[in-house]
Amino acid sequence: MSFEKVAIIGLGLLGGSIGLAAQEHLPGIATSGFDADPKVRERARERGLCATIADDPAEAVQGADLVILCVPVGAMGSAAEAIAPGLRPDAVISDVGSSKQSIAAALSAALPDHVVIPAHPVAGTEQSGPDAGFASLFHHRWCIITPPEHAPQGKVDDLAEFWKALGSTVEIMDAQHHDMVLAVTSHIPHLIAYTIVGTASDLEEVTRGEVIKYSAGGFRDFTRIAASDPTMWRDVFLNNKEAVLEMMDRFLTDLGMMREAIRAGDGEMMFDQFSKTRAIRRRIIEQGQDDARPDFGRHEHDPGDNEQE
Amino acid sequence: MSFEKVAIIGLGLLGGSIGLAAQEHLPGIATSGFDADPKVRERARERGLCATIADDPAEAVQGADLVILCVPVGAMGSAAEAIAPGLRPDAVISDVGSSKQSIAAALSAALPDHVVIPAHPVAGTEQSGPDAGFASLFHHRWCIITPPEHAPQGKVDDLAEFWKALGSTVEIMDAQHHDMVLAVTSHIPHLIAYTIVGTASDLEEVTRGEVIKYSAGGFRDFTRIAASDPTMWRDVFLNNKEAVLEMMDRFLTDLGMMREAIRAGDGEMMFDQFSKTRAIRRRIIEQGQDDARPDFGRHEHDPGDNEQE
Repeated sequence: MSFEKVAIIGLGLLGGSIGLAAQEHLPGIATSGFDADPKVRERARERGLCATIADDPAEAVQGADLVILCVPVGAMGSAAEAIAPGLRPDAVISDVGSSKQSIAAALSAALPDHVVIPAHPVAGTEQSGPDAGFASLFHHRWCIITPPEHAPQGKVDDLAEFWKALGSTVEIMDAQHHDMVLAVTSHIPHLIAYTIVGTASDLEEVTRGEVIKYSAGGFRDFTRIAASDPTMWRDVFLNNKEAVLEMMDRFLTDLGMMREAIRAGDGEMMFDQFSKTRAIRRRIIEQGQDDARPDFGRHEHDPGDNEQE
Repeated sequence: MSFEKVAIIGLGLLGGSIGLAAQEHLPGIATSGFDADPKVRERARERGLCATIADDPAEAVQGADLVILCVPVGAMGSAAEAIAPGLRPDAVISDVGSSKQSIAAALSAALPDHVVIPAHPVAGTEQSGPDAGFASLFHHRWCIITPPEHAPQGKVDDLAEFWKALGSTVEIMDAQHHDMVLAVTSHIPHLIAYTIVGTASDLEEVTRGEVIKYSAGGFRDFTRIAASDPTMWRDVFLNNKEAVLEMMDRFLTDLGMMREAIRAGDGEMMFDQFSKTRAIRRRIIEQGQDDARPDFGRHEHDPGDNEQE
């Protein structure tokens, strides 16, 4: 591993997991961390998310040849400014944000003399904060690196090696294409989930208690991703606006067609649409991106269940 | 338990689970089953989904004082007609369908002289067919019974007892209200999931392979329920049209507001909306309707993970 010391700025789910994973998989690398919230720093020390937790961002990055910003997308620019005084001139600056064009612009503006190589590990849970991270979060998950045009290839390779060591499979992608792909696979699903959970909780005809009681019919799956960090997601939508709006309009068109099929009683159209989607599920499971157990294995927690295994 | 023999018509996920659960929890009750598909009957015999599997629907219900129809909503009427020749005059006719007004009408029309008490266990997985059922499917799940106005109270109580014995908590509800509640908590989530999975698989800018690869960003949660049985779901939307359309229009209004907030860069509106939804998730978990483990415990399958427990 070419890097000697990685500094992690922001110690929530992603930052904490990187710290734990680096210590587990790359014992030769020094790890230091910082979070703007003193309580998070305290908890990070208790959990040992990094070997050292600094009380100042510029102090955290001292001596680091890799700095990974793990703050909400909208805070990337100011986080980059805050670390500037302590940065080694040859440090590689990276991040884990979910919209890559806007972050590339913000980091390059804040640190014009540094090598900036944005990255996005496509991994997460609905939890956030310093207690949420765990070392295996990136196992069998993709990490998309979006190097700017003139990024030194050697540094891109080093960053790829780092993520591979944490268990990820690395993909190099153009930032604009990344933003479109993630709009479909992540941003729109979150937006839909937040919206339907909001709709369901504001109805007059159906009480919130009823929605909660009968959520096992499908609704509860949406509540999981709608429990994700609000600040993080607000920033994603503010910063990947164009791709999100484009994909949302496709979805709205398709939903309008589905609405018309229901209104007209067009069972054939519905059956055709509903049949197409099973194949995609099967391939996601084959590729190890989800759990093949029915219901994700939720029933395995049920002490009365001996049928599932 | 007042019932002596339960007959189950349709041996997929729900029917098979009832058969297994009844044999496990109610050993004093005789179970018999039928499915229109000879291959399903063969598999049902191999798995022992019921004590006896008949090759004829009227034969399956002979001597049964409880008959539960577990066929797609659109097939309820013809299934009821098929069992009529073998029915005891005092048999209670029930079902497990997801839209209750239309089923009540179909069953009463087909069997005008019988006591019809529709019911809906709010439980399921994305699997279907005779291999999908398991005895604990109904544990800690709600079963909604929607008795018609003149249903004999004693029979309603008997049916409630049956479902409680299978592990469910029973709720009595008006059929119309049921259809509205389930439109929100189950039908609309399935429709949205089917639609977004369809949208994502038909894009030009983003390949299907990319959608599958990066599905861990949120999309994969939607593919689970979009893998549900197409016939069953087509019938649900054909038979609960009004409530589904009404709820869909609420959702579309809210999604339009979200779209406008993104377009206008209204971060405050988004943050407020995204913050509301966490409380609902928490209550669903408190009430035992979902798994509190991050990511539903998916990571527990990862052999490298020692952090989660």
